[in-house]
Amino acid sequence: MGEEARDGAVTDQYGRLHHDFDVERGLGNDRFSGIEEPLLVSSMSRGGTRTNFTSQTAIVGANLCPIESLDYEIFENDLFDQDWRSRKKSDIFHYVTLKWTLALLIGLATGLVGFFNNISVENIAGFKLLLTNNLMSKHRYYEAFAAYAGCNMVLAVMAAALCAYIAPAAAGSGIPEVKAYLNGVDAHTILAPGTLFVKIFGSIFGVAAGFVVGKEGPMVHTGACIANLLGQGGSQKYGLTWKWLRYFKNDRDRRDLITCGAAAGVAAAFRAPVGGVLFALEEAASWWRSALLWRTFFTTAVVAVVLRTFINFCKDGNCGLFGQGGLIMFEVDSTPANFTTPDFLAVIFLGIIGGVLGSLYNFLVDKVLRTYTRINEKGPRYKILLVMAISLLTSCCSFGLPLILQCLPCPAQSKEECPTGGRSGNYKIFQCPPNHYSEMASLFMATKDDAIRNLFTSDSEKEFLLSTLLIFFVAIYLLGIITYGIAIPSGLFIPVILAGASYGRLVRTILGPLSNLDGGLFALLGAASFLGGTMRMTVSLCIILLELTNNLLMLPSVMLVLLISKTVADIFNRGVYDQIVRLKGLPYMEAHAEPYMRNLVASDVVSGPLITFSGVEKVGTIFHALRATTHNGFPVIDEPPFSNAPELCGLVLRSHLLVLLKGKRFTEQRVVTGSEEVTRRFKARDFAKPGLGKGIKLEDLDLQEEDMEMYVDLHPITNRSPYTVLETTSLAKAAVLFRELGLRHLCVVPKTSERPPIAGILTRHDFMPEHILGLYPRLGSHR
Amino acid sequence: MGEEARDGAVTDQYGRLHHDFDVERGLGNDRFSGIEEPLLVSSMSRGGTRTNFTSQTAIVGANLCPIESLDYEIFENDLFDQDWRSRKKSDIFHYVTLKWTLALLIGLATGLVGFFNNISVENIAGFKLLLTNNLMSKHRYYEAFAAYAGCNMVLAVMAAALCAYIAPAAAGSGIPEVKAYLNGVDAHTILAPGTLFVKIFGSIFGVAAGFVVGKEGPMVHTGACIANLLGQGGSQKYGLTWKWLRYFKNDRDRRDLITCGAAAGVAAAFRAPVGGVLFALEEAASWWRSALLWRTFFTTAVVAVVLRTFINFCKDGNCGLFGQGGLIMFEVDSTPANFTTPDFLAVIFLGIIGGVLGSLYNFLVDKVLRTYTRINEKGPRYKILLVMAISLLTSCCSFGLPLILQCLPCPAQSKEECPTGGRSGNYKIFQCPPNHYSEMASLFMATKDDAIRNLFTSDSEKEFLLSTLLIFFVAIYLLGIITYGIAIPSGLFIPVILAGASYGRLVRTILGPLSNLDGGLFALLGAASFLGGTMRMTVSLCIILLELTNNLLMLPSVMLVLLISKTVADIFNRGVYDQIVRLKGLPYMEAHAEPYMRNLVASDVVSGPLITFSGVEKVGTIFHALRATTHNGFPVIDEPPFSNAPELCGLVLRSHLLVLLKGKRFTEQRVVTGSEEVTRRFKARDFAKPGLGKGIKLEDLDLQEEDMEMYVDLHPITNRSPYTVLETTSLAKAAVLFRELGLRHLCVVPKTSERPPIAGILTRHDFMPEHILGLYPRLGSHR
Repeated sequence: MGEEARDGAVTDQYGRLHHDFDVERGLGNDRFSGIEEPLLVSSMSRGGTRTNFTSQTAIVGANLCPIESLDYEIFENDLFDQDWRSRKKSDIFHYVTLKWTLALLIGLATGLVGFFNNISVENIAGFKLLLTNNLMSKHRYYEAFAAYAGCNMVLAVMAAALCAYIAPAAAGSGIPEVKAYLNGVDAHTILAPGTLFVKIFGSIFGVAAGFVVGKEGPMVHTGACIANLLGQGGSQKYGLTWKWLRYFKNDRDRRDLITCGAAAGVAAAFRAPVGGVLFALEEAASWWRSALLWRTFFTTAVVAVVLRTFINFCKDGNCGLFGQGGLIMFEVDSTPANFTTPDFLAVIFLGIIGGVLGSLYNFLVDKVLRTYTRINEKGPRYKILLVMAISLLTSCCSFGLPLILQCLPCPAQSKEECPTGGRSGNYKIFQCPPNHYSEMASLFMATKDDAIRNLFTSDSEKEFLLSTLLIFFVAIYLLGIITYGIAIPSGLFIPVILAGASYGRLVRTILGPLSNLDGGLFALLGAASFLGGTMRMTVSLCIILLELTNNLLMLPSVMLVLLISKTVADIFNRGVYDQIVRLKGLPYMEAHAEPYMRNLVASDVVSGPLITFSGVEKVGTIFHALRATTHNGFPVIDEPPFSNAPELCGLVLRSHLLVLLKGKRFTEQRVVTGSEEVTRRFKARDFAKPGLGKGIKLEDLDLQEEDMEMYVDLHPITNRSPYTVLETTSLAKAAVLFRELGLRHLCVVPKTSERPPIAGILTRHDFMPEHILGLYPRLGSHR
Repeated sequence: MGEEARDGAVTDQYGRLHHDFDVERGLGNDRFSGIEEPLLVSSMSRGGTRTNFTSQTAIVGANLCPIESLDYEIFENDLFDQDWRSRKKSDIFHYVTLKWTLALLIGLATGLVGFFNNISVENIAGFKLLLTNNLMSKHRYYEAFAAYAGCNMVLAVMAAALCAYIAPAAAGSGIPEVKAYLNGVDAHTILAPGTLFVKIFGSIFGVAAGFVVGKEGPMVHTGACIANLLGQGGSQKYGLTWKWLRYFKNDRDRRDLITCGAAAGVAAAFRAPVGGVLFALEEAASWWRSALLWRTFFTTAVVAVVLRTFINFCKDGNCGLFGQGGLIMFEVDSTPANFTTPDFLAVIFLGIIGGVLGSLYNFLVDKVLRTYTRINEKGPRYKILLVMAISLLTSCCSFGLPLILQCLPCPAQSKEECPTGGRSGNYKIFQCPPNHYSEMASLFMATKDDAIRNLFTSDSEKEFLLSTLLIFFVAIYLLGIITYGIAIPSGLFIPVILAGASYGRLVRTILGPLSNLDGGLFALLGAASFLGGTMRMTVSLCIILLELTNNLLMLPSVMLVLLISKTVADIFNRGVYDQIVRLKGLPYMEAHAEPYMRNLVASDVVSGPLITFSGVEKVGTIFHALRATTHNGFPVIDEPPFSNAPELCGLVLRSHLLVLLKGKRFTEQRVVTGSEEVTRRFKARDFAKPGLGKGIKLEDLDLQEEDMEMYVDLHPITNRSPYTVLETTSLAKAAVLFRELGLRHLCVVPKTSERPPIAGILTRHDFMPEHILGLYPRLGSHR
């Protein structure tokens, strides 16, 4: 099966990056890198020799920043218990109210941003196109090109500069990163306020600059950033915090908010509320539950209401050049005739070729991305230069291709104005004589939304020439591939839909009288086949297409095409988002265990030595352990006299230890102070997870020499219910447990009582194929 | 929160039933009941005094049959390992091909059955209605009533007799049972071939008999039965088996197939393929993964293609009286005007009242169901009598109400024929003079589908009188409530949609000129509010309504209404399916842990003594343990000389022990024979799970006296990787682990080495609130 295909061997380079991820484990004492020393990691990775960069599985430079695992386990220590028991009905009420309020706010904010994006793009691009058309109508072709390419270049440089200098994490689609976050991998700054800002404006400039990119991926990322910002209690850096949001200071609740945000993003981009929910469910989220479905649904409903309100407001011409497109973005109003056998075969053919071309698209995007990564790594200036080059190329294609192609006479009876010098429409005059129009200009010299709308037009209103469709298809297919990866926010949906729709119409034209289906329907099916071939989603794409086109009667055919193209494409490679996640080196945890994991047991992949603490531990020991390692979880062992034999008490977290040490309530004797002492001193919220990079650092501790010799009781902050597996449990089962419960640490306990009560800790890293196959290369061949 | 509301104390009666479920555990030696002795259970429960039947949480008699837990864990023993290692690429290919072939077959079969159901109902009911109309047109009112009520009665008795004598499990909706199955609870005969047969024909007769029931719930159940039948490798009882289906002889793969079946059922009933997928996802399934989404999607796409083909075939009048309704069942073609503030308030009002009425519906259905259960328990005759009574009442209402209400003059310009003596249409003549029509007859003397279509008609074509709507609403609301629970297959969707649509139109009529929205739209929103209030689904209902009515522009309003009505109704009680699951005493495992579980640890709810086996055990010991208990899982302990200290080797299953004992390869000495001996004798498929009731029974064993003194090596059949929790793990965490991984047994291991290596086994039963609150009644008050 295509899903199980893996590529490439594991190189040093790759191994080194994954070492960064080692920070999870209370294992080993490699001081290598991690959260605490981002500069070191960054410099080491960048300074690393490139000579051994031979692996298929490379890393995109922008993400050589620290990665942190998320922890969805409820950390049941004494403080949690106390908080839990003391909670009042009103607390629960506040929590629930807040949860829904946040969902509402996420919906409102994402809806607003989505609309703002839309209106800005339409106005900027509209102004640009009108200016060009105006010059063209005066036959000032060179000036027109200069104006057009110049506008594009300025917008492109603005977008690129934002990305290169302010938030490199905002480049690209953002969906892979959101997907990885929802899988439990937090890449630094990926959801930061700066990224949000750049994503919004970079996307507007990028789309308005005429690049073959969409705003859909960036909107998903924007929604996730908004959710993160709201859920964090604002941003301390920018002085915006809401203290009553402390309930959401944990990874579990943040994950839920970000899922809502991702759904809201799709809903805002496509005006497809149900499609948004399903996208979040099928593609973005790794964990799901019914309660979350409902909340996500609410968020996207809010987005829909916001959009509807604004679109109604804009109908009266209050929004400048905005005005086209209601709640249904690309209406396909041609009712399908009854399917004949040739039609049916044509649909299957469309699906198969769509699948092949879709997987080829993924393959080429991957290759181009690797090349671009090397250029982008050289510095911000190179990034901007690359963007400028692509911008010039795009401008030349968009302007040049219509210019060299023939003009067509206007049809006799058309509902639309023909020819038009306006911003949109099927019949652009461009360089043509009166009563003639340029077909290519109608597609190229328009916003991408208008181009898609043109391609979805019914045959009864508009037919395209074979040559136009072929040239447009090839140009868009290639431009789409070489544009993804440059340093601007760039969505993949619109390029794929555009290429797919022109491909579908092309097939219709080739078939000629063999099929009695409409060209608009073929464009829709072509778009579906390309989407299926690249994104590999099913239900969500189906609903998104349905909501985009409002054509329910096409549903069975769309389903069929999606299924065929996904099946065909899965033979060759992975979905484009999965591919980018891998390319970026994000340790994504698959839902299923790999077959070779059945041949190993949990203790096979645990590497030692293990650092453990006693129930009552010397402050100096803790401090040195924290300084010497970058681990995040440490097992706590109760030893005599506190218990009859050594036994596993539980797990403490680095962040909790830092809070405890900062509190400086130590004892001179090695005694159990109990939880009362701690609960008097701390509140559960003191241990709540702060936003990334905001927690207490080791350097913040002000420990004196005499403190080091004192003791501190770790019991109150120890999670007494860690999940455990026996060391003889098969690795496959441990992986399923780890993945299904969303863990960060999984304790491996020995089977016999003669050994210490813990044999090791499994973290995300230990389940990665690269780690396992590095230890047992022989297994790889059996796959 | 409504979701967390629990009702009632735990009575003896209830506790006793849950004891039946104790068969899971290798704990205790209560020989009380269980799978092995269904007759005893059944007789005891029925003979039990009814005096203490005071609990809110009662049990519906039909389900006092044995219940079995399902096991989704991969049982990794030596045989599995061997099978796993020896599997070839071709095996995987066969498995994958079969998986998809089965999905295809499920889709085809469910589509066919759905269409057969549709065509049968339309023809039978159509014949009945035409006969009645014919007599009415001759003013032979008494004969008309006799013909109408007589037809209804005959059909009702046929449906009831099928249910009462052949398959009692086929009565009711079936969705609660399918939901419980997909949660891991297999109620006996619920998916048997007999149930399938009765469900198909009982549903046809029941719907054709004019009851206020739908075919949607039964179609879901039918789909699940078809999937089960196909996946079992056919039915041995009826001599239909496919040997190459051995791959699917486990609970995991069957669960996937049945999920596909449930989705196909909804797709076939509503002609809503995407709605079907989402229904399976949101309401039916408890576990979900992306791969299953795709397979389910394929199944429903097949259903859609089958339906489309047949509907096209029938368009030319090849299907008798069938012909109305294309792929969109209830087209709402009125485009919504712009919402004004009064409209917006009206929609919110509609949602609130819909929520209240929906939860009242649930409350009343629950009450009626309890009463009916007592009647139905008295025997098949009482069941049939009850059905006859309700049939007569329904006939009287349907015939009588139109008769006593006034006739209206036909509108001057109507697109439809007015008046009509036909089977469907908005303007039935019934008892009226020429050029007049009876509004009530158009709703009552029609199939339920036609009635809904009438209510969804746009205002521009048809307006209803306030009095008609009010009387119809009240009648349908009450008839719907008293009809559910009688011994016929009865879906809840159609009654709820019907009541909701008339309620919506009623509100529209009351509002009068205050709102500028269409009556058809209000009917749609009313139906949404009722569905939200009773079923408590969100996304799936939204998509089902969308696919039913093809009106995408109403999406934001439908979302809003669903959210409001669900929220309001959740304050009062649970969703109707959850309620029935509880009423039937099915031990449904919720996705979230109950709050009070945080105050307990795993060992708190484990009850002893525990029965364990040695790694090499005496045959007699095993035999007696199997005879003395009804447990399904037994821990295996390795003891000296096979290990240095007693240690947990794993878990064996009752069914595997029976296969091993039947094989009779015992040794005289207590020696480890190793896995080779066993793998030579058995294949992994010998241990595969057979269909319910088809495995080896204890009585099938032919053990001699001398066998009893011999030994057998249990190692090869022991699952060496059972999931474990420490005894000090909080019960909440154990519950999450148990639920998320779909376990049947969870081993509790001690923390200290001085104790035996296993402290107990947790099963589904141990997580049930009734069990826990029975042990710790004090916790209940803290909830």
